[in-house]
Amino acid sequence: MQSIRAALCFPAAGVRALVFCAVPTQVRKRARQVTSLMGSLALALVAAAGLQAQTDPLPSWNDGPSRKAIVDFVGRVAKEGGPDFVPAEQRIATFDNDGTLWVEQPMYVQLAFMMSRVKELAPKHPEWKDTQPFKGALEGDMQAVAATGEKGLTQLMAATHTGMTTEQFEKIAADWLATARHPKFNHLYTECAYQPMLELLAYLRTNGFKTYIVSGGGVEFMRPMTERVYGVPPEQVIGSAIKTRYELKNGKPVLMRLPQIDSIDDKEGKPENISRIIGRRPLAAFGNSDGDQQMLEWTAAGSGARLMLLVHHDDASREYAYDRESSMGRLDKALDEAQAKGWVVVSMKNDWKTIFPPVK
Amino acid sequence: MQSIRAALCFPAAGVRALVFCAVPTQVRKRARQVTSLMGSLALALVAAAGLQAQTDPLPSWNDGPSRKAIVDFVGRVAKEGGPDFVPAEQRIATFDNDGTLWVEQPMYVQLAFMMSRVKELAPKHPEWKDTQPFKGALEGDMQAVAATGEKGLTQLMAATHTGMTTEQFEKIAADWLATARHPKFNHLYTECAYQPMLELLAYLRTNGFKTYIVSGGGVEFMRPMTERVYGVPPEQVIGSAIKTRYELKNGKPVLMRLPQIDSIDDKEGKPENISRIIGRRPLAAFGNSDGDQQMLEWTAAGSGARLMLLVHHDDASREYAYDRESSMGRLDKALDEAQAKGWVVVSMKNDWKTIFPPVK
Repeated sequence: MQSIRAALCFPAAGVRALVFCAVPTQVRKRARQVTSLMGSLALALVAAAGLQAQTDPLPSWNDGPSRKAIVDFVGRVAKEGGPDFVPAEQRIATFDNDGTLWVEQPMYVQLAFMMSRVKELAPKHPEWKDTQPFKGALEGDMQAVAATGEKGLTQLMAATHTGMTTEQFEKIAADWLATARHPKFNHLYTECAYQPMLELLAYLRTNGFKTYIVSGGGVEFMRPMTERVYGVPPEQVIGSAIKTRYELKNGKPVLMRLPQIDSIDDKEGKPENISRIIGRRPLAAFGNSDGDQQMLEWTAAGSGARLMLLVHHDDASREYAYDRESSMGRLDKALDEAQAKGWVVVSMKNDWKTIFPPVK
Repeated sequence: MQSIRAALCFPAAGVRALVFCAVPTQVRKRARQVTSLMGSLALALVAAAGLQAQTDPLPSWNDGPSRKAIVDFVGRVAKEGGPDFVPAEQRIATFDNDGTLWVEQPMYVQLAFMMSRVKELAPKHPEWKDTQPFKGALEGDMQAVAATGEKGLTQLMAATHTGMTTEQFEKIAADWLATARHPKFNHLYTECAYQPMLELLAYLRTNGFKTYIVSGGGVEFMRPMTERVYGVPPEQVIGSAIKTRYELKNGKPVLMRLPQIDSIDDKEGKPENISRIIGRRPLAAFGNSDGDQQMLEWTAAGSGARLMLLVHHDDASREYAYDRESSMGRLDKALDEAQAKGWVVVSMKNDWKTIFPPVK
């Protein structure tokens, strides 16, 4: 799926890049030979043939009801003149991130980042060795950290995510994401995005959708990677946010990150933020946990064709298997609602041919 | 300028619609005659000629330093291979609304809406006749309203803007905007947008810019009109916001508007919200008051070519003349900074040929 990955890396080039990358190598090679013989008119004809050779936009999805529901939905809303047609500017699709687009086990990526930051900053804070939740974070004792509850997590967040400018934090997050590896798969976290979901993002965009991320994760933690990994630009990333304060430092304006939560983009917060920031109801919403339940309900309550989809982590051998009892990405009430209302529940085990993109 | 207006009403049709609308009628008529004689090849040639006939994208702007600064800036950042080239996806332009895109005197449009709502709701609140700030609002006594300060305005806002769902409020705002008229010009408020700024919005979009509104006005008050009037879709409108609460009513999800301020999108709030919601620094920012000063400073502090512009209301005969002493849209500190730093200060009187679009 190198071709799709390449297209994702160059979103500005758009559909044409996607089409070109999807033309098999031998077709392109043949195109070059023909060109040398017959000139530019022949090239145009071969290019047209190449367009037809572009076949499956979702090659990592097995045939089955999940894939069929996606393709049917897209076909209905994109078919001009059809009864379910929706103008392109109204085709909004919202995606949760953790557990929907990339791995969230054994802990949320941002939590791993936080633990790593505590270790990095510890030499300047000798008192942390004896104070929870920092002691637990330094010793990798997640139970001790968890025992400090919300207060402890807020302390860790304040110590690791605030007190710098937005530009400084962006660099810290980008640098960490450039080297940090997943403990089980030993790939960069940014390589632990789900290949079938990358295809789905590109497929929706090819069909005129504007793809948004609507995640409980921090918006400024995600932005350094979303464009490169998912093809989603910064202005289409919604997440939890802390307050910032505009200041002049030596006459230069900066935005200082403050240790105060501004918005938690989870559960009810998702439709609230979608309404406030996007101002349109999504046509399609994708999640994997109870944190996404209200976003899917809000999407489902619109008129006309809608697509609500949950990724169910049931693949212990290739990724992880968890749902109703998990502390990260619990899928319990939303699974009941999905089953009751006929939302699509994707089985990673049965619906997906591969989990991760090939590592470059 | 009917042609530009038409293009603004069909943003999805994009550049081609703009180009076609800009071709003078006689050229189009001649095109039809030629077509009947010479067929489609001739049409293509005439269409090409029409492209050249498309001359001035800013016909309501007089020649002068303001217009020149705009055209020079756009030329520099859009010129591929040039030293100031910026890729299209990074071309963000942010516009204040009140006083920059439409009239804000004798009072902000949303304030007029609020006063009108108080009168409409008064029969259900007999106590308002004797209680400030409602008494003042009902009697049109703005001094009495102003005397109640921020507390009074918050009471008025809560009584008129909250306690309903987001969808109900959208309809209330849209219905009011469909009929409410400006007291001086006797046109619909939505017809009191500035023609030169409509041309500027379209010109920037034609040159690959994504145009945002970043206004102190309520985001849900503006959205019912921004796409139709400015060609700015809901997801590119940032404004002040109240909190909403996700609820199930008879099993159907709604977002209830609560009497609590979530964010004031003014002064420092503008760069803070731009950073949080757009996640990119604007290349160009347009305002008219001290409320826009920080947005322009934030824009100016980026590297490479930038454009900061203030609309100066100095045209008492065609619109209004006000700046340092005005209670609505005060322009004082930002004017000093603009003069000190060489930001563009547009004189409505000298730089604009016309103020408003022709009424249809």
